[in-house]
Amino acid sequence: MKYAMDALFEAVRDRGPVCVGLDTAPDYIPPREIKHATSKARAVLDFNRAIIDATQDVSACYKVQIAYYEALGLAGLEAYRDTLAYIRQRGSLVIADIKRGDIADTAKCYAKAHYEGDFEADLVTLSPYMGMDSIEPWFSYAKEQGKGAFVLMRTSNKGMKDFEYQELAKGGRLYHEVGRKMQALAKECRGSSGFGAFGVVVGCTEPEEAERIRREHGDLFFLIPGYGAQGGAAEDASRLLIDGNGGVVNASRSILKAWFADFNTQNISEATYADVAAAARREALAMKNDILAACAASRGREGASRG
Amino acid sequence: MKYAMDALFEAVRDRGPVCVGLDTAPDYIPPREIKHATSKARAVLDFNRAIIDATQDVSACYKVQIAYYEALGLAGLEAYRDTLAYIRQRGSLVIADIKRGDIADTAKCYAKAHYEGDFEADLVTLSPYMGMDSIEPWFSYAKEQGKGAFVLMRTSNKGMKDFEYQELAKGGRLYHEVGRKMQALAKECRGSSGFGAFGVVVGCTEPEEAERIRREHGDLFFLIPGYGAQGGAAEDASRLLIDGNGGVVNASRSILKAWFADFNTQNISEATYADVAAAARREALAMKNDILAACAASRGREGASRG
Repeated sequence: MKYAMDALFEAVRDRGPVCVGLDTAPDYIPPREIKHATSKARAVLDFNRAIIDATQDVSACYKVQIAYYEALGLAGLEAYRDTLAYIRQRGSLVIADIKRGDIADTAKCYAKAHYEGDFEADLVTLSPYMGMDSIEPWFSYAKEQGKGAFVLMRTSNKGMKDFEYQELAKGGRLYHEVGRKMQALAKECRGSSGFGAFGVVVGCTEPEEAERIRREHGDLFFLIPGYGAQGGAAEDASRLLIDGNGGVVNASRSILKAWFADFNTQNISEATYADVAAAARREALAMKNDILAACAASRGREGASRG
Repeated sequence: MKYAMDALFEAVRDRGPVCVGLDTAPDYIPPREIKHATSKARAVLDFNRAIIDATQDVSACYKVQIAYYEALGLAGLEAYRDTLAYIRQRGSLVIADIKRGDIADTAKCYAKAHYEGDFEADLVTLSPYMGMDSIEPWFSYAKEQGKGAFVLMRTSNKGMKDFEYQELAKGGRLYHEVGRKMQALAKECRGSSGFGAFGVVVGCTEPEEAERIRREHGDLFFLIPGYGAQGGAAEDASRLLIDGNGGVVNASRSILKAWFADFNTQNISEATYADVAAAARREALAMKNDILAACAASRGREGASRG
């Protein structure tokens, strides 16, 4: 069986590790385009299409954060459905960033909701708090149908110290325990790429911790959020990759809002989707090149220290 | 400010602690009703309305598990919207069981999605894995607008041992740490009932643990799932209440599927929404009486041991 994670591995090999995050807030959309749209939700869809068309050949996949669409109600979820369908029609992979996590019967409903039908995605994100029986129904489905998931492990928001980072009496931190359980799951189901059908979400962190996480979880494909929030992002991300693969690095706002840099208060009313697209492409390509350069530099250092 | 949690306290005082869970799967609906419906999603809504009309005066509130609606795609979410609106129009409180949990900007979108607009609910459920900064945007919104939430603390599924139950190096289990943080939050914002605007989800568990959780979290209103899954449920639930208040006890399937007991394979095709409604009311009322009797018995025991 070829899993979505194997397809993602191939996409990274062919087009680099950039994941374009479509966390599209209506205020990222050029004023003149939003004025001409029949609704906010429709403008969000058109904006997404422009970004997708412009970045497809320089990105591995798209991540769509459902919260931004839920916030617009039913019309927003229609735009969510159409965004997912557009990405898949164009032959790209889509990660539904939904972070669901619930008991078994409920998890089965959620899996049906996001692995088939209106909201069909290739991969999803899941939250592990309630335990592995909240992951299992997704895993059963994914094994049969070739889908995939990323389970929250070690995020990079400030609040991750509250619970993820708690030291356990048996040793290690809570997120290590999540990693161990996901590592065991990966052994049960892996495809052609050698990575488990389910991976984990690991945010950029200090060099030592990142290197240890990558070393200890060689079987797990990473979804790496938080790119571009601070300096040294490409180098940080490269430590979580394996020779530039084994993970995708997500950027949302830096790509979606790249067009703002080309306009000022005088001429912002002239901006169109063509400007959005050009700036997004430029930004995604620069990000891809930065990360691949950081990966090459790190191979160089390793080679030097080995030789 | 009167918070949703205060209104819930009053509802429990006036109508008892039963929370009717509308986890409506299409196969709970009488075959003849589903045959006459224009769509599955429409049948789900009509089924819910029948249950709501029949149980309003014997229940404190409704909990709607969004996964069952997401599983039906956009049409399902239309039924979800209309179910929430129907409950609120009738003057009852509704808990959106969504278990969302994400970083601050995303949490803001989710709060907008579920505290206003198409999917407006009075209270929601949240997952704490990513930390308190994933709860904070909901809390800020709730403080201003009088909304509420229940954060997952100690659930009663088997998998809760995986992470919630992990012993921490600093003492206590992970779920205690969640409880401590939620206790601190309750002190920041409480209304007329004396309970915090945000409470926690605590499942039925062994007597000793339940009594300790209730004792240590006197400021927190509980959402108690898992009723009726095994024997002794009313007694288990009563230990998590304070004189029959301070929590709502959810039952879903036992109420939604109560009508099955009145039919057999010969006559099931005759069942209608009126039968669904009558059986649901009977079941909710029995549950209410069982829990209140268990609460009275426990007060009796306490009185005897004191005297």
